[in-house]
Amino acid sequence: MRMKSHKEDIQSLIRSWECAIQNGDMEGILAHHSESVLMFDVPESLQTVGIDDYRKTWELFFRYGAPSQEVFVIEDLRITASDEVAFATGLLRIGGSSEPVCRLTLGLTKRNGQWQIEHEHHSAPHQLNS
Amino acid sequence: MRMKSHKEDIQSLIRSWECAIQNGDMEGILAHHSESVLMFDVPESLQTVGIDDYRKTWELFFRYGAPSQEVFVIEDLRITASDEVAFATGLLRIGGSSEPVCRLTLGLTKRNGQWQIEHEHHSAPHQLNS
Repeated sequence: MRMKSHKEDIQSLIRSWECAIQNGDMEGILAHHSESVLMFDVPESLQTVGIDDYRKTWELFFRYGAPSQEVFVIEDLRITASDEVAFATGLLRIGGSSEPVCRLTLGLTKRNGQWQIEHEHHSAPHQLNS
Repeated sequence: MRMKSHKEDIQSLIRSWECAIQNGDMEGILAHHSESVLMFDVPESLQTVGIDDYRKTWELFFRYGAPSQEVFVIEDLRITASDEVAFATGLLRIGGSSEPVCRLTLGLTKRNGQWQIEHEHHSAPHQLNS
């Protein structure tokens, strides 16, 4: 039996999370997260800590866009992994946008044989004052 | 001789980078970065790839705030590290702000015995439309 690589495991986890978002499946969205997940989201506040406040960021998200295959799409997914710690980056098409409009960084750790998301950073760049 | 832990090594690297920013020391700012560093910055564009464009993001930064001890201060620095891959998070006081106004995530890898920054994500949250 071939062991799947860490990158493949993490890619599967991230794609299943993306799919859960597209389906509005909150249980799936939260399935691979640390209880103490640190979230930097696109809208205020500056940060949230913990799975309960993380859930609220998605409740807010779905007030602005109903679940669909186009509501949250990760492009250019890149994963850097060792045995115990990994980070991943991607660009996000949001709410049917034809081009990416946001950026995503994830921090992950492997605990008890399972990868979990410890940190998410979602953002949209600001226009410079001209 | 006690080996310094990975977290201590990375903390030293990040604090020396912060100090270089405060001093406007571009050589120091770039000293620990991958040639292919992926940057998600506060202002547009969505991303830059490579050390040359990374340098330009700091040239832009210093057009808005002269180097000083208060121009870029990392608070709540948290580092998660294994032998080869790490990520770090922090909150940023910028340009003398009394409270943090931006968020920072770093992705690092150890190559040839040296930690280097492969990815930076700087952002400020957006106000929600009321």
